Amino acid sequence: MKHARIAYDGAIHRATAVPGDDTRLRLADGRILHETQVVWLPPVEPRTIFALGLNYADHAKELAFKAPEEPLAFLKGPNTLIGHRARTVRPAGVAFMHYECELVVVIGKTASNVPRERAYEVVAGYTVANDYAIRDYLENYYRPNLRVKSRDTCTPIGPWLVDRDDVPDPMNLALRTTVNGRVTQEGSTRDMIFDIPALIAWFSSFMTLAPGDMILTGTPEGLADTQPGDEVVTEIEGIGRLVSTIAAEQTKEPA
Amino acid sequence: MKHARIAYDGAIHRATAVPGDDTRLRLADGRILHETQVVWLPPVEPRTIFALGLNYADHAKELAFKAPEEPLAFLKGPNTLIGHRARTVRPAGVAFMHYECELVVVIGKTASNVPRERAYEVVAGYTVANDYAIRDYLENYYRPNLRVKSRDTCTPIGPWLVDRDDVPDPMNLALRTTVNGRVTQEGSTRDMIFDIPALIAWFSSFMTLAPGDMILTGTPEGLADTQPGDEVVTEIEGIGRLVSTIAAEQTKEPA
Repeated sequence: MKHARIAYDGAIHRATAVPGDDTRLRLADGRILHETQVVWLPPVEPRTIFALGLNYADHAKELAFKAPEEPLAFLKGPNTLIGHRARTVRPAGVAFMHYECELVVVIGKTASNVPRERAYEVVAGYTVANDYAIRDYLENYYRPNLRVKSRDTCTPIGPWLVDRDDVPDPMNLALRTTVNGRVTQEGSTRDMIFDIPALIAWFSSFMTLAPGDMILTGTPEGLADTQPGDEVVTEIEGIGRLVSTIAAEQTKEPA
Repeated sequence: MKHARIAYDGAIHRATAVPGDDTRLRLADGRILHETQVVWLPPVEPRTIFALGLNYADHAKELAFKAPEEPLAFLKGPNTLIGHRARTVRPAGVAFMHYECELVVVIGKTASNVPRERAYEVVAGYTVANDYAIRDYLENYYRPNLRVKSRDTCTPIGPWLVDRDDVPDPMNLALRTTVNGRVTQEGSTRDMIFDIPALIAWFSSFMTLAPGDMILTGTPEGLADTQPGDEVVTEIEGIGRLVSTIAAEQTKEPA
């Protein structure tokens, strides 16, 4: 089943996809809504957001970095998350804002020291992220830092949380990004350097995982700059089609 | 006022320090308890935990690194937090587990783009952290990575959240660490490279801060290895005296 978290009619609801038609949602009371009628929220509220740098060999090569020999992992702030069909702000004055289509593993239970062969037991399901990167601030291999990866609105996520058991082989899914309708990135989760069981085993060897925690598993090659007005669609086979629009940064008022 | 979050008699309570005697707490119903009667929890539950590397020039020199020209910031997982008078686990087989006495700034309200001169308006108060580092995994200047800084139990915090207005000059507080009663680290918050207003202005320029968020502001020189059985006390003038005990890692069962 595919689950969403949306705002509609003065409240936040859990909803499910109408079977065979991902553009429509069913609320718990049976109402059916079209995707344009609701505000899509991130489908999960994580305690911790884990992310991987350079977890596809072709992408590491594209950035002229060697492929990592252990997971190149970092944390992202929950301030970054935003839902399907929302605006992501391109900071004023930067040169490179790259989309990144990524499969997200959502953890289903409290877990530590999970052996590789039992890793999928702690997975609740999967969703899609567009893990935008402001590459101006990427100083070197070791530094996927806050200004690259933890800006407000720079991680659209969703639309759906898809139950684990509905995804028979998460390590063999096609990923694709389009910008204004033109395909710019294509890959497969089979090309991850550290696969899902390896990542769960590694993180949980020193950090306790909690329900709702997310692992953003990295992106394949094919990055390109995005500009205000662009519509960026990151899509993963069987998981979802996530729409994001780039907006120019406005002068903000202090808090 | 000094606030604590503790567990006692089957429930979690907010408590305050008995004026003039930080070893005793008053519950909301008036009961007075000694600090040894309760389980101390982290005084705040943050959404995001920000931390600084090398924010004291003497400490940067001690690690043979140059002082940073912009904040060397990273995020920590909430899994790391643990309360006053608790055990922190030293991982099996590592060579360097260093304590780090740090002043923690606790954010009081949602804030973005906070100008330097208004930074203290968004502060709720202060507490003490011992931001243990497993230095075996520190590969270079840019890499205060997950295995160094985000392990379960490796960030004792507390005992008290001290209200902002009770700390007239947070940039002039003595810090001190003792290991088994011997003083091993002494410094002053006046030696921070990036002061509290600079940090709040910088983080909030690209990440929205939320109530309860914490900024761990870095540590001065004087680090030393700690071993199972050691009692490590990190103390900041007027803020608190945080006690931590090192325990050996046990073989853990899978989740």
